[in-house]
Order: sequence, then structure tokens, then C-alpha cells
Amino acid sequence: MSYDFNLKTKDNHLIIGDLDANDLAEKYQTPLYVVDEQKIRENYNKLYSAFSSKYPKLHMCYASKANTALAVMKILNTEGSYIDAVSPGEIYTALTVGFKPEEIMFTGNNVTTEELEYAHKAGVKLNIDSVSALERLSTIEGTEGREISIRVNPMVEAGHHEHCITGGPKSKFGIREDEAVEVYQRAVDLGFKPIGMHSHIGSEILESEPFMLAVESMMNIAGKVHQEVGVDFKFLDFGGGFGIPYSPDEDELDLETFTTDIINLFKSKLEEYDMGEPYFFIEPGRFLVGNAAVILTRVNTVKQSYRKFVGVDCGFGTLLRPTMYGSYHHIVTANKMDEEDVEEIDIAGNLCESGDLFARDRPMPKLEEGDLLAILNAGAYAFTMASQYNSRPRPAEILVNKDQVDIIRRREEMSDIFHGQSIPTRLLK
Amino acid sequence: MSYDFNLKTKDNHLIIGDLDANDLAEKYQTPLYVVDEQKIRENYNKLYSAFSSKYPKLHMCYASKANTALAVMKILNTEGSYIDAVSPGEIYTALTVGFKPEEIMFTGNNVTTEELEYAHKAGVKLNIDSVSALERLSTIEGTEGREISIRVNPMVEAGHHEHCITGGPKSKFGIREDEAVEVYQRAVDLGFKPIGMHSHIGSEILESEPFMLAVESMMNIAGKVHQEVGVDFKFLDFGGGFGIPYSPDEDELDLETFTTDIINLFKSKLEEYDMGEPYFFIEPGRFLVGNAAVILTRVNTVKQSYRKFVGVDCGFGTLLRPTMYGSYHHIVTANKMDEEDVEEIDIAGNLCESGDLFARDRPMPKLEEGDLLAILNAGAYAFTMASQYNSRPRPAEILVNKDQVDIIRRREEMSDIFHGQSIPTRLLK
Repeated sequence: MSYDFNLKTKDNHLIIGDLDANDLAEKYQTPLYVVDEQKIRENYNKLYSAFSSKYPKLHMCYASKANTALAVMKILNTEGSYIDAVSPGEIYTALTVGFKPEEIMFTGNNVTTEELEYAHKAGVKLNIDSVSALERLSTIEGTEGREISIRVNPMVEAGHHEHCITGGPKSKFGIREDEAVEVYQRAVDLGFKPIGMHSHIGSEILESEPFMLAVESMMNIAGKVHQEVGVDFKFLDFGGGFGIPYSPDEDELDLETFTTDIINLFKSKLEEYDMGEPYFFIEPGRFLVGNAAVILTRVNTVKQSYRKFVGVDCGFGTLLRPTMYGSYHHIVTANKMDEEDVEEIDIAGNLCESGDLFARDRPMPKLEEGDLLAILNAGAYAFTMASQYNSRPRPAEILVNKDQVDIIRRREEMSDIFHGQSIPTRLLK
Repeated sequence: MSYDFNLKTKDNHLIIGDLDANDLAEKYQTPLYVVDEQKIRENYNKLYSAFSSKYPKLHMCYASKANTALAVMKILNTEGSYIDAVSPGEIYTALTVGFKPEEIMFTGNNVTTEELEYAHKAGVKLNIDSVSALERLSTIEGTEGREISIRVNPMVEAGHHEHCITGGPKSKFGIREDEAVEVYQRAVDLGFKPIGMHSHIGSEILESEPFMLAVESMMNIAGKVHQEVGVDFKFLDFGGGFGIPYSPDEDELDLETFTTDIINLFKSKLEEYDMGEPYFFIEPGRFLVGNAAVILTRVNTVKQSYRKFVGVDCGFGTLLRPTMYGSYHHIVTANKMDEEDVEEIDIAGNLCESGDLFARDRPMPKLEEGDLLAILNAGAYAFTMASQYNSRPRPAEILVNKDQVDIIRRREEMSDIFHGQSIPTRLLK
């Protein structure tokens, strides 16, 4: 059976929370990111319960790069989430939202010494990505005796696109598994207190197997480090990568099987290496917010060229994934939800670039100018990757909570594109 | 012989204008976009002379999407350039910089009626991309008798990446060549005065041939429209796509041969169809600004993983092309310009994504932490495609004119990432 995205409809219209998407588009204009608060809360609780019912010493660090809207982060803050931050900006954002420093895990890649110092002083959990960062951290005043975690790269890879395979031989992340003992020993020698290990193998994982391989591999590394270096791990962080269905042909992750498989393996490895009961950390991003937002965009052009194109009022500056990764995003017609697909068309954005297409040969109902499309699964890696390319101001973002609506990011104006710019006076003569 | 990018060096250091890139990086910090004013002026004049010496009725419309920095546009304004604008934002920017409306050519794709109205009222040249836009324009008050141009899509394609092939059967742009007569007639019937035709077949064209095919094809279409609809063309706009060498293995466009070939063909076609002496328009973007800027970025991490990675302090949020298109950007070591390449390494950005790499297996001198890299050809499609992904504020941009330096875009701060955002008060309780 094909996946139906759990969409609510009424009278041929798409409903978000308790509200008609067409009314939202009318009132707040298009293009528009629409975030559904209840979906975020449901996603968080579903994943949390699935793991915590099997292993209560759990923290979920929301991978905030998926969606750093302050309101989205605040929702997860109220649910009790921790944060996975990948830059000083994400640390700063999380602190601003109200996360405590100890709830923030900083995992940088190719960070400067100044950035390490910022993270150290902010008091967040530090997850070190390279020997270089370890050595440089030790030169920063006040880091002696500091608790740290280290990111390892097990030889396991998984992902929906080559760009998103973050483990394995070609990955830039972490230290090699064969140098783990030596690097943890080096950390101890430098005066640090290693208390965590981290790995992250990729994204859009929809089955147990690749994640199981990663857990097994990292647990063997952690076990060895525990036994040979004497590190007592307070937490083991397996990263994220929990996928969501983007296409009707995909299935949801079977959470019960997935969490049972993983926690059983985790526990047996803890026992095998006599590692006690450390915290189990995961870093879900897409899983928590991906399906919680749509982009509403209006059809303005129907064109019969050598192919049939339906043109809308946003482009890859608003959602980069289809152009950059060739990612599939399901698209529904918010004012024709009950109509059958009758033809295959291309759905094109409004940027001056041929790759600016949201879909090729996509079966859709008969579309007309004025129709409202909803691009699904736009909660993760949508606004955070947005640009003002073609001098197109970035869209507004609203938060729907049942029948309440708040603007959580105002629509940019043309003048926002000039932000911080100036012309040298000598050129104005 | 391999292309050398015409770099200036002194005492092992890269020189931009008359200034040491290392001093600029020290003073303005990294990452940093550095634009060389004289290169833009040279590029403009070189291209302008090559065409105008053979056909003086010429206007070059700078394709501003390549780089919309106000200062960059002002430089081209002072040189006498026209502007190719692809959005209301680009029209607004050009007007702000001081271009006159009649110097601005608006070519939208999938534009809304409101956007057409904005362009119409701004008084710019309108280049219509679809029958839909033509019909909708006619519904706007005051458009009767308006001069317009129409974009046609000849069945010719060229480009460096599938995303950048803007002509041919898969392209979303323009009207089909076989419907040109009918659409121009429709324009006349709607009360418009068609006075131009436009096409644009792709980008990164480094030889005459594909462009010649496009000119021939469009001239045949224009000739037919002239003869059958009676349109007297005031201008014929062949778009842009003039390439620059990104890799040492590429050669510069042979401008003398290229312009001779094209203008001879253009003139013979004008004669063949008895079309008089319309203006010859082109829309260079990359050619004018591509090689006029570099990104200075500092090495902060050297890591021997399963491969050797050299990590720098910016990522694909600063320059998307390598990750998005797999584009080659030549990279030099601004403090080791005279040193030989000794090893092949990967140059990695600082974002949390495996695809965040500026180069794979790139021969480089022996690199150390603290070295300064210059990513060449970052004048086009660099800042304009930039994002704040991973909550990384966008870099500053400076303009060098011989020994003068001006900041033309200030470095963003962390708080710029929150710009326009708010958290609903109910979530703050």
C-alpha cells in the first residue's frame, strides 16, 4: 500500500492543524512555510517513547541544522529535548531559545580555535572531530580536566545521496576507528576527561540494518577504548539519520522493530564490555520536523512547451533539495485534494535556472493558474538552506497550533537583500 | 599550455589589485569575498570592444543574478552597461544603483501578475517568457501599445551542467520556436508592440559553435516573424553564456574569432530577411564578474582520515557550485604561491554535510593549519547563492581598486540569523 502522508482534508481542501491551507495562503500570501506544532510534538514523543520504554537513560539531541527557527527549537525545548549544534551560531541560537548549556552537544567540523573557545566558554558538551581540534582545544585556557566526547568514523556508510553519507572511507567527519584508542589516550594525556563517544553514519535511514551495523561498530570501538584506556563513558551518541517517507513508495520506519533491535544490541554490547549504564544519545533532525511543515506555493503559469510546465511562485532558493540532491518531494494540490491525477507534468520554480524544478513527469490533477500547491516534508533542510538567489526575498514562516496561527518569521522585503551593503562613495560621483 | 588565471604574485604571496591577499585576510578576517574592480572594468571593455568594433549598435545587459552586490552593479553602471534582471528584486536593485528603467531588461520565468505589473510600472523593457504571461500582462491597466520582447526557445542546448542548459526540449524557458509566429501575432492582436526577441541557450560556452547555432536558429525565427507578422525589431537579444576557464585545462574564449563568427552570421541573417539594423543585445554575467573575485579562507584543520582532508573556515553556504554542480574551482595557496604541488588532498568546508567539499584529490603544496587559500572565480554565482546553512553568518565582501579597499557588504553577525523571527508568547510561558 502506498504511503499517504497522514494528510487531513475537508471539502477538497488541505487542512493543516484545524485550518484550511487555502485560507492560510490567502491571509499570509505565498510562498509560505507552514509548520504544524502538534506534528513536531507527536514526532518527538513517538520517538522518545519508543526508545525510552526500552532504555530509560536516554537523551534526544535535536539536530537543529534541520530547522533552526526559534519557535521550532522552543517547541522541542518545552518537550525536554537536548540540542545537537554544529556551529557557534547554533549554540548561540539554542542558548537564546532557553536550552541550558549542558543540554547542548557541539559537534563541529573543521572548526577554528576561536570557535572551540566560544563553545568551551559557553559550557556546552564538546564533541571533538579531529586530532587537530583536540590539540588546539588543549591550548585554550581553562580546558584542563574538561569533559569531552570524540567523534569516530566507523567504516559504515548510509544515506540518501552521496552528499549525505557521513560515515565510511570518503567521509570528512571524525577520527578513524583504528586510531580511536590512541586518540582517547592522547586526550587523557592532554588532561581532558573523555566521557563520550559519537558517530553518525548518514541520513534517510528507513531500516534497522545500516544503523545496527553502526551501533555494533561503534560499541566495539567504545568497548576497546573503555578496556584499553580506562574511559568510563557517561554517554554514547549514535547520531541521527532516522528517515521519513518522502515518496508514496516509501514506508515509515518501523519504530518498534527498529528500537528493539538497536537497544538489544546496545545492551548486549554494554554487557560484553562491562561498560555499566551510560546514557544513550541520538540526534534526530529530519524525523522530528521533516513532515511537520509544507511550502504553500501558487501556480501562476501553465505552459505547453516541448513539455508541459506548471510554474509556481517560488524556486530552489526556497527549497534546495530537489535541485541539489534530486530529492523527491511529494506535492499535493491544496484546493483539489479529492481530484484524480490525470497527467504527468513538470513543476517549475520561478528562478532563472533550468535546474529549478520541483518535479519532472509528476502525475497531478488538471492544474490551472491560481491553484495552490503544497510541497510536503518541507520542515527539514528547507528554510535553513534557503538563499535569496535571483534577488528573491525569503518567504514568511507561520506556526499553526490547532486553530492558532503565529508568524514566526516575517516575509523578507526587497530591501533585506541589500542588508549590510554599501557602495563606496568614490563610485557615486 | 595550461591556463594560469593571470594571477599576480609577490614574494610567494597572492596579490589582488596592488594588495597582498594575506594582509587583506588579516585585516578583514576570513572567510572573505574579495572583488577586484579593475578586472570587472577590463572584462566589460574587452567584451564590449570585441563586439562593438564589428557591430556598433550594441548593448550589453549585465546578467545581475551572477553578482548583485550594489557596488559591483554600480561599477558596471559607470561603464555604460545595461542590466538583465530576472526578478522584481533585481529590477529594484538596478534602479537603486542608478540604472535608468530603459536600461533594464526584465526576463521573468513563472512570474505572477503582480510581478508583471511591478515591472510594467517601473518602465523597464519587458521580455515575455510565456503565452500565459502575455495574456496576463494584457489585463494590466495601461499596457496597451506597450513595447515588449518575447523569449523563444530554439532547439539548441549548451551548458556546463544539466541544470544550466536553458534552451532545448527540456527547458522551461521561453516559447517554442514553432509557435513564435502565432505568439507574436497574438501579441499584436492584444494591442502590444513587439520590438524584440530573446533567447538564451545555456552557460559556460567556450567555443563559437553552440552560440552560432543559437544565433542562426533565433535569426531564422525572427526573420519569419518579421516577414509574416510584420514585426520591426529594434533589438535582438542573444542572452549570455560566455564562459570563463575554471580549470587550468580550459582555454579562454577566443573573443576575436567568436565575435567575428557571430557578427558575420548576424549581419548576413539581417540581410537575408531584410531586417534593417536592430540593436544587438547580449547578457553576459559570469564573463564580466566571474574571475573578478576570490574567496579567501583559512586552513584550520589538517586531518589524516582514510583520506587526507584539509579543512577550511567556510563551506557550501559560501560557495555552492562545487557541491551543487560538481563544479571545479581552482584553489591557490595565497601564502605559498611559488611552492610546487606535492600531494593530492581533499579540501573540505566547515558544514555538517559530506558533500561540503571544495575539491577531491586536488594537487596542492604541502598545506598546514594557518595557511590561506584563495578559491578563484568566485565573482559569479557565489554570494548570490549563499545561505546561512548550519547557522553560519554570511561572510563580508570587500572591493579592491588598486591600493584602495572598501567593505561593500559587512560580515553578518549571529543575530542576523534571527532576522525577522519571533517565538509566540504562549510558548514562552
